[in-house]
Amino acid sequence: MPEFNAPLRDMRFVLNELFDAPALWDRLPGLTQQIDSDTADAILEEAAKITSGLLAPLNRSGDEEGVHWQNGNVTTPNGFRQAYATYIEGGWVGLSGNPAFGGLGAPKMLAVLFEEMLYGANCSFALYSALSSGACLAIDAHASTELKERFLPPMYEGRWAGSMCLTEAHAGTDLGLILTRAEPRPDGSFRITGSKIFITGGEQDLTENIVHLVLAKLPDAPDGPKGISLFLVPKVLVNEDGTLGAGNSLGCGSIEHKMGIKASATCVMNFDGAAGWLIGEPNRGLAAMFTMMNYERLSIGIQGLGCAEASYQNARTYAKDRLQSRSATGRVATTQIADPIIVHGDVRRMLLTMKAMTEGGRAFACYVAQQLDLAKFATDPEERQNADLMVALLTPVAKAFFTDIGLESCIHGQQVFGGHGYIREWGQEQLVRDTRIAQIYEGTNGIQALDLLGRKILGNGGVSLSIFANEIRGYAEKSASPYSHQLLAALQRLLDVSDWLADQATIDANIISSSCVEYLHLFGYVSYAYLWTRMAEIAEKKRVEDETFYGAKRATAEFFFARLLPRIESLDSCIRNGSASLYALTTEQF
Amino acid sequence: MPEFNAPLRDMRFVLNELFDAPALWDRLPGLTQQIDSDTADAILEEAAKITSGLLAPLNRSGDEEGVHWQNGNVTTPNGFRQAYATYIEGGWVGLSGNPAFGGLGAPKMLAVLFEEMLYGANCSFALYSALSSGACLAIDAHASTELKERFLPPMYEGRWAGSMCLTEAHAGTDLGLILTRAEPRPDGSFRITGSKIFITGGEQDLTENIVHLVLAKLPDAPDGPKGISLFLVPKVLVNEDGTLGAGNSLGCGSIEHKMGIKASATCVMNFDGAAGWLIGEPNRGLAAMFTMMNYERLSIGIQGLGCAEASYQNARTYAKDRLQSRSATGRVATTQIADPIIVHGDVRRMLLTMKAMTEGGRAFACYVAQQLDLAKFATDPEERQNADLMVALLTPVAKAFFTDIGLESCIHGQQVFGGHGYIREWGQEQLVRDTRIAQIYEGTNGIQALDLLGRKILGNGGVSLSIFANEIRGYAEKSASPYSHQLLAALQRLLDVSDWLADQATIDANIISSSCVEYLHLFGYVSYAYLWTRMAEIAEKKRVEDETFYGAKRATAEFFFARLLPRIESLDSCIRNGSASLYALTTEQF
Repeated sequence: MPEFNAPLRDMRFVLNELFDAPALWDRLPGLTQQIDSDTADAILEEAAKITSGLLAPLNRSGDEEGVHWQNGNVTTPNGFRQAYATYIEGGWVGLSGNPAFGGLGAPKMLAVLFEEMLYGANCSFALYSALSSGACLAIDAHASTELKERFLPPMYEGRWAGSMCLTEAHAGTDLGLILTRAEPRPDGSFRITGSKIFITGGEQDLTENIVHLVLAKLPDAPDGPKGISLFLVPKVLVNEDGTLGAGNSLGCGSIEHKMGIKASATCVMNFDGAAGWLIGEPNRGLAAMFTMMNYERLSIGIQGLGCAEASYQNARTYAKDRLQSRSATGRVATTQIADPIIVHGDVRRMLLTMKAMTEGGRAFACYVAQQLDLAKFATDPEERQNADLMVALLTPVAKAFFTDIGLESCIHGQQVFGGHGYIREWGQEQLVRDTRIAQIYEGTNGIQALDLLGRKILGNGGVSLSIFANEIRGYAEKSASPYSHQLLAALQRLLDVSDWLADQATIDANIISSSCVEYLHLFGYVSYAYLWTRMAEIAEKKRVEDETFYGAKRATAEFFFARLLPRIESLDSCIRNGSASLYALTTEQF
Repeated sequence: MPEFNAPLRDMRFVLNELFDAPALWDRLPGLTQQIDSDTADAILEEAAKITSGLLAPLNRSGDEEGVHWQNGNVTTPNGFRQAYATYIEGGWVGLSGNPAFGGLGAPKMLAVLFEEMLYGANCSFALYSALSSGACLAIDAHASTELKERFLPPMYEGRWAGSMCLTEAHAGTDLGLILTRAEPRPDGSFRITGSKIFITGGEQDLTENIVHLVLAKLPDAPDGPKGISLFLVPKVLVNEDGTLGAGNSLGCGSIEHKMGIKASATCVMNFDGAAGWLIGEPNRGLAAMFTMMNYERLSIGIQGLGCAEASYQNARTYAKDRLQSRSATGRVATTQIADPIIVHGDVRRMLLTMKAMTEGGRAFACYVAQQLDLAKFATDPEERQNADLMVALLTPVAKAFFTDIGLESCIHGQQVFGGHGYIREWGQEQLVRDTRIAQIYEGTNGIQALDLLGRKILGNGGVSLSIFANEIRGYAEKSASPYSHQLLAALQRLLDVSDWLADQATIDANIISSSCVEYLHLFGYVSYAYLWTRMAEIAEKKRVEDETFYGAKRATAEFFFARLLPRIESLDSCIRNGSASLYALTTEQF
């Protein structure tokens, strides 16, 4: 039975030593909760306990049992109801919620670390609250005060959950095609009619109510994405005093049978003239939904990171225990029948790839979270605006790169186990199955890459990229880190290929979609190089204090620069070879 | 429900146009069966029918139902028994078997194409006969005439199956650690006692008997791999006249619950003083087993290829049907609500990656098979010897590269489907789960890479590499192919890094295991570049005849050189960055 333990030491390193978060929080008066280093630490400790002690033990059994559907009702696996009750007692759903409506107001930098633990311990369980947090965010940002007052407090408490109803059978990426209709009713509410698929947590037995955020079209709506509105559609209607009333006209038609996240209910939701309330302005639903989507995208990225951490932990334990063959440099475990496989170069390569990418990813997640906190709480408008641009720029990278690398890491972890990685009892194959979805939902990674290159790089004339590049260059030029030069070279490569793409885009309409995935990966490696350069600088300074931790950090940085960063060379070449070879075949020639 | 159709047109291209196999067969008198182009074609046609019509329809249902174990008996999924009976009527198990004992004697070049179809249609089913074919090969090469006469004919017929019993709980890669014992009995046979795990087809309900090939240690055997012997241990004892006698003292203790290949029985086999017969010489069992292992390794490589082809077929169909968003260059399907997703660059990138790597892999599989045929049937001893070296050199590449790329292809195919790729009904997620094992069993891909770089490249002083490189150079220097120069550059890169590694290995014992996987991939891409250069030359010449086929081939070659071959740049850099960064951490620092 695999264990999961939150990597607290490394999380503290990132939060306190790399980013000095407490000092940042001190200068953000809008962060009304008094979060100092001790409080943050206590929250992380408590989060580590609940994720490793309560949620991780339900991960395998949840996968084996899965979710049951009968007559529209969904039953979560054995143990989930009880665990959820304990979980919400701790107030975790509202961790970063608005204190005006009962949220705890914790900074996002803390929340992302908690989310990583959640996904590392139990992806399926994590999703039930991830969707709630995202729904709360959209309601908080766009709904009327009345709706906020009525819905947010029980949602932050976790008594009610949220869901996100976008996809229809024929409309996934292309939401402009949705057919779900919203007809106005005299009292200002709407009748929602249509069918949605792939709805995570659309139905479950954990909460008293489920607040669906539904995309639908008003009668006179324009065609396409500019004619979509967002509605709040509760499973159970809510009386003026906040008590629960009658059931709404909606139901769960079936659940999907999936490759993984089997303990998470993925529902077909049918709305049959259900009562709904408009959130935000008519026909501006996509914009409102994107508040939630950006939040969810970072969160889903972190699913990849959490699974990668879990994979690393399992594989590391196995690699230290499993005895097989002798080291190339001579016997190590002289009294044993063979050496532990961690002596072998290829096993180390796989472990270090996981370790370097997970620690780099954790730093990047915290970096994006820092930008989210700044965008929300910075007092200087320019700082807020720049942070907003950084969030927009880096969210698609986080979502896609964390999850692509997350899958790679879970596959490496499985490979370390050999045949034992393929059978179910070790939990490694579940990690592969569970993390795979994160590359697909909340906008496929191809869509994230289009968003990055098309909108966030070329679409704003490279302004956001310049801000990010200036920060990196400013740091590297005065840093004592052993990797400053490599970082500057990698950054230049990113800037050069970005320029090349900007030129190319003026003459080739296909270049963006043809090279965006390679571009996103290149961007991801350069971003990690930035954070590894900073981490290496700290580690170099502090290794006299604690060689075990800082020496490992320093050595992992070396591995990143020696064996992972060179991946950008091929990505660069592929991009520069252009789109022509992708369009030389007719449809029939495939 | 996904369909599978053998890619007959492309198979004929590889067999007849790329390699001119019929002309080759004509000059190999040892190929006693009269295989001409027409016969080969008839066999392929028939194979296509049985794989698409009989086996593919059982793929999904077999996965859903899985294999059942009760009191030592294994029941295969519904429909497997009947299908197996039809399958063996066609004589497919003995397709490339020795005609002296009832095999059909077909060349390996034909057999690999058949195997690709088998795995593409139904991996689990394919494994039941793949193990038989491999066992027959080992028996044919190393057993006494008496054993051959008694066992081979019913095995080629498919009435009896074979299994390969190597792994024990504590001994996978490191077979020198096995504990299974063999005690001599007065009649010249042995008593085999021990427990084996992960035995594919160790028990099933398809055949009257199962012939286990078991690695065990004689009482006076030296320690380690040089003290291992190979035994033939039938499930049911066989009388002198070939009829079945009493059951042997062995049984299936349980079956594994796995990520995929759920319709294939993966068994714990317990031998409790079972009667066995020595195959080959005492303590030389590993060598004898490697006859089988090399065969199996190519076959398991082809599992990756078959799955990749199936993935491509499914994704291609979906990409032509699914309407979502508009092309970057303007509407294509003007009367539809959106364009088919095949217009989008990133979808094309994924489809073309699958197509280019599968067609390149198919050519490479046939190339290796050609070497196997030459090694067996060439009349010139030097040609035989060279071919032997090529088989040894290229088999680990085929096994590991086909399966690593196979997984990548199945993941691309799944990604093309978006959310629909993650749910079970479309079959894509099963391909990912089924193909994943092929990177692990028959020697993990890390072990294949060690074998390639350690034994086949550095271990023989680069002799085999020179032969392969001379062939490539000889071709490229006089070829009219548009890619000759790129091929020569890629080859030079491979040779340079091979030289660098040879030097490095004299001073760094860790370099081989630290860089072998990247090296194997680099080798794989260069091999594919060779075959794509040749295919492009033919396509260029013939495109006036049939633009649909040859134009597509030509364009796919272009994609390979533009977007896939550049991957070797990063691999090269990673290798040259050496092993130091993998060994800078102590075990405790992981």
